[in-house]
Amino acid sequence: MHSPSEQNYIPQLQVDCVIFGYQDGQLKVLIPKLDFKGDFWSLPGGFVYQDENLDEAAGRILEARTGIKDVYLDQFRVFGSTTRTSKGFLERLIELNAEKLGDRRFNRKEYDWFTRRFISIGFYALVDISQVRLQKIELDESIGWYSIKELPLMVMDHNEIVESALETLRLFLDQKVLAYHLLPEVFTMKEVQQLYEAIYDRGFAANNFPKKILEQNVLERLEKKFTGAANKAPYLYRLRRSE
Amino acid sequence: MHSPSEQNYIPQLQVDCVIFGYQDGQLKVLIPKLDFKGDFWSLPGGFVYQDENLDEAAGRILEARTGIKDVYLDQFRVFGSTTRTSKGFLERLIELNAEKLGDRRFNRKEYDWFTRRFISIGFYALVDISQVRLQKIELDESIGWYSIKELPLMVMDHNEIVESALETLRLFLDQKVLAYHLLPEVFTMKEVQQLYEAIYDRGFAANNFPKKILEQNVLERLEKKFTGAANKAPYLYRLRRSE
Repeated sequence: MHSPSEQNYIPQLQVDCVIFGYQDGQLKVLIPKLDFKGDFWSLPGGFVYQDENLDEAAGRILEARTGIKDVYLDQFRVFGSTTRTSKGFLERLIELNAEKLGDRRFNRKEYDWFTRRFISIGFYALVDISQVRLQKIELDESIGWYSIKELPLMVMDHNEIVESALETLRLFLDQKVLAYHLLPEVFTMKEVQQLYEAIYDRGFAANNFPKKILEQNVLERLEKKFTGAANKAPYLYRLRRSE
Repeated sequence: MHSPSEQNYIPQLQVDCVIFGYQDGQLKVLIPKLDFKGDFWSLPGGFVYQDENLDEAAGRILEARTGIKDVYLDQFRVFGSTTRTSKGFLERLIELNAEKLGDRRFNRKEYDWFTRRFISIGFYALVDISQVRLQKIELDESIGWYSIKELPLMVMDHNEIVESALETLRLFLDQKVLAYHLLPEVFTMKEVQQLYEAIYDRGFAANNFPKKILEQNVLERLEKKFTGAANKAPYLYRLRRSE
């Protein structure tokens, strides 16, 4: 295992990804659990190569865990507090896992590289969970989707990073027309409403909601097939294709 | 002159500040010109000390040029493209100023430190120009307010950084009630409208504008003093004090 410092990364800089999905009526976040004693959950994150753009780094980190790319992915905030340093966390992790780490125990140089202050650029991604193939990478014990309402306690300030990403998602949901990244290609109006309710954690009046959504002028309603069953089924919508 | 690398800065990280003000009906940005041959304009920026928070660094950079603190100041985007590196700019600056630099010519270590790729965290500040006392710092030939419509061509991607800050200002102007940071304590509705027009670079209908603003529910109207002259004067407003 080479020291990261030898791998041509930008020092003291990392990218953390809040990957949002929607499943079973719940807004969820993709969170790996580290393969170490001590129950360490940590957002998918990584370092930035010297010759790599920031969004390339975020895309690489996203793809490694989900197998997908070309999804909505944007930076939303930098987390750089002097008190978020990983020193305590890493020392605890190493102490608990001294035996397991064995030969992989960090050498001094590597330890210094890891335990310095890190500035993290937070990215958020919006994915259609049905398109994702979850993949563990080195150091993942498990990886899974956690409801935004039942997140595990993560390392460092990662719970705070998710909070901030959620604020951004709410702020831009209409302005940047973000909701449909979280839905399959075709959906009902009720499904859109349920998604909104999951994101804002509150109800929306069913009599106003479709009007509000249709005023965005981005959806097209599909023709019903006139069989008896389809006739009673709700209308289906999809994003209008740009011409 | 010590090498910055010896001064305990985070390597390859900088903060650039887009300081907005409003004057003579124009939205303006504070831009220093570097004290070197070759007409180099550059946003107020600097590095981040290892023991300093990001917003402390931005506040320090703001205060050095304006003498003020405790104003609206927030990060808005990270600029980290691999192609924004300062190498070409710095080489040109050094070539043009070889004589002047003299003893201060960068040594190899310092040169390497400066010419590596830098990740810049963009902050934007909103100030009341009447409160500002402009101060040149080391390496400033001059410093001044430039209309957003007549910005000088700056080094690296700094014009792009201003564009992005302006987008953020427009996006959050109502949502975060930002306009009044740019006005003096007391102002007329017409002045608010002119500020909006300068920021969005378009007209607003005078019959609708006051309603839109007053619906934000953040202003209080001052009582007129009933002298003959004041009676014809427009109403004055100020931000409602929080109770």
